[in-house]
Amino acid sequence: MDVLSDANRLAREGRDIIHMELGEPGAPVPAAVRAAAEAALARGRVGYTEALGIPELRARIARLYADRYGVEVPANRIAVTGGSSGAFNLAFLAMFDVGDRVGLPTPGYPAYRNILTALGLEVVEIPTTAEARWQASAAAIEKVHAERPLAGIIVASPNNPSGTMMTRDGLKSLVAACADMKIALVMDEIYHGLVYDGDEVTALEFSGDAVVVNSFSKYFCMTGWRIGWMVLPEHLVRPVERIAQNLFISPSELSQRAALGAFEAKEELETVKAGYAASRRLLLERMPKIGLDRFLPVDGAFYLYADVSRYTNDSLDFCRRMLHEAGVAATPGLDFDTSRGSSYVRFSFAGRTEAVAEACERLGGWLG
Amino acid sequence: MDVLSDANRLAREGRDIIHMELGEPGAPVPAAVRAAAEAALARGRVGYTEALGIPELRARIARLYADRYGVEVPANRIAVTGGSSGAFNLAFLAMFDVGDRVGLPTPGYPAYRNILTALGLEVVEIPTTAEARWQASAAAIEKVHAERPLAGIIVASPNNPSGTMMTRDGLKSLVAACADMKIALVMDEIYHGLVYDGDEVTALEFSGDAVVVNSFSKYFCMTGWRIGWMVLPEHLVRPVERIAQNLFISPSELSQRAALGAFEAKEELETVKAGYAASRRLLLERMPKIGLDRFLPVDGAFYLYADVSRYTNDSLDFCRRMLHEAGVAATPGLDFDTSRGSSYVRFSFAGRTEAVAEACERLGGWLG
Repeated sequence: MDVLSDANRLAREGRDIIHMELGEPGAPVPAAVRAAAEAALARGRVGYTEALGIPELRARIARLYADRYGVEVPANRIAVTGGSSGAFNLAFLAMFDVGDRVGLPTPGYPAYRNILTALGLEVVEIPTTAEARWQASAAAIEKVHAERPLAGIIVASPNNPSGTMMTRDGLKSLVAACADMKIALVMDEIYHGLVYDGDEVTALEFSGDAVVVNSFSKYFCMTGWRIGWMVLPEHLVRPVERIAQNLFISPSELSQRAALGAFEAKEELETVKAGYAASRRLLLERMPKIGLDRFLPVDGAFYLYADVSRYTNDSLDFCRRMLHEAGVAATPGLDFDTSRGSSYVRFSFAGRTEAVAEACERLGGWLG
Repeated sequence: MDVLSDANRLAREGRDIIHMELGEPGAPVPAAVRAAAEAALARGRVGYTEALGIPELRARIARLYADRYGVEVPANRIAVTGGSSGAFNLAFLAMFDVGDRVGLPTPGYPAYRNILTALGLEVVEIPTTAEARWQASAAAIEKVHAERPLAGIIVASPNNPSGTMMTRDGLKSLVAACADMKIALVMDEIYHGLVYDGDEVTALEFSGDAVVVNSFSKYFCMTGWRIGWMVLPEHLVRPVERIAQNLFISPSELSQRAALGAFEAKEELETVKAGYAASRRLLLERMPKIGLDRFLPVDGAFYLYADVSRYTNDSLDFCRRMLHEAGVAATPGLDFDTSRGSSYVRFSFAGRTEAVAEACERLGGWLG
């Protein structure tokens, strides 16, 4: 946030800043989304909907699981939410009680920690390792759980900030281990659709008990509409519905109608994804040449998580200097990992490929 | 909810049901709102915004306080939220700690209770009386607070379900009493703009410490966009911003841009309001003639809260029979007041005046 507001200030002052700190697609509203929104506006009324979303959208999302993964999910297990943020709020309230311990593999998305803490839950960090491909291993979770039981765990694959993805076998054994230990599993799959290397696997392939969170923000380029969803186990559908009725009444009807259009935007969305893939290839080739040769596997999402320990043990200071001296904004790893993050920086390649190329030029000069 | 799903089922089966159970304007999207939304779509990108909302909208909302009440509120004290629902979630998390006692005048909006409970707060009912115009009096709050301290209190004026409004003097002494007792005051003003009788007074006239919640859903007819706001005391701006960043990232950009259009829709919105006013006059005249002569003062909002103790001491059963036998859906008072609500029914007149007239016909026949 600190770097973000500094970057915005410098940009306002006329400095040419390359934004690699934003986890947000730079693409415009897909044409089919715009058309669906305009059609909804033309119908006249835009009102409250069912708390879990309009039936058409729940059914269409269910079909995504059949089409993308070959997994059958009934529409009544889909909850449409105000972005994945809304989903996390609802899931945590429905699943956990105040004081419960919830495991968070690190590095990880900082909002998990902050939402959990705001709701009175105890966050238990589970550091990941290179050996486990920077993902939560069943063994690591078992170890923490044995010390004092966890009520749940939140796992993201592909992960933010690391971009790493669980393997099929890794996810399968994670799901089995959680079932054995009676640890509720929340799977964050919001970067699905943006996978460059490896198999895209949903936890639903192995379990009807996992809560799977997803969103229209990333692959579908709909951040500013605040629309997402989760797939719930049967026993959580009614509790989540009741909490949603009270907490949020319903998701935005207009965003729901627009999201139906997103499923017709495949060609446009695949073009956007091809742009990320080009940026990723470019980074994989150039970063090592400019002295940033240590980073985690960039399987999915649009992040490269680079080890900068050769240059600094204060990633916030490093990011500040990189912004002011090289005009490149990126996010200090401390945001995602309060201990080891001091040696890491997250570079987002959600922007244009030309900007990514220019950033490599600048960083090469700066680090050199 | 029970009556709502019954009503929807009967309507689907072809029964002609008059919906007086919905707290939602029946009017279409105002033309200026639609135009603003279409312009935002045409600009191309719809993305995350500042967590507290885009500066233009915060400034425009601040101006509303100058225009409507003659009160100066700086734009940086405005937080744009996902409906008033989002505002309540953020305010409660920023203001209270788990276990805190929060006073709720009853009858009142049931979601307050349910959100507070979901967040681990203790709800303390403060029954209102005819003597206090069915609004929270300073004396009633002092009494409860003396028994065991309250951390806060949530007061709605005009109130849902009662439609009653605080007088200027009543509000002024409430604000003073809360300040004296160090009780945080959350003022729900979401029905402002829909006042038929009496002075529309904001708590901000008397205090910079009250949290004032409002929404584009009611007067501005934008329910399905999930967009609202609150005015915060200075010391809560940064805490709310941080929680909002984590819990919701930002409100919908499209809804924010559309909401700017709502301020240009005055003529259309005043026509809608004139429709409510006509329905209200009709109800005030006819209800007594058909045997529903006891109800609370209908100062504002679009609710009439009728005492039906002459007919029943089970308002849920009464509403079910009224729905099935007379084809009129309304909400049992039990939703708003778990004790005295068994003798009350809330009739909403947010629909068309002709429908309200037809409902009076039907109820006259049925009660007769």
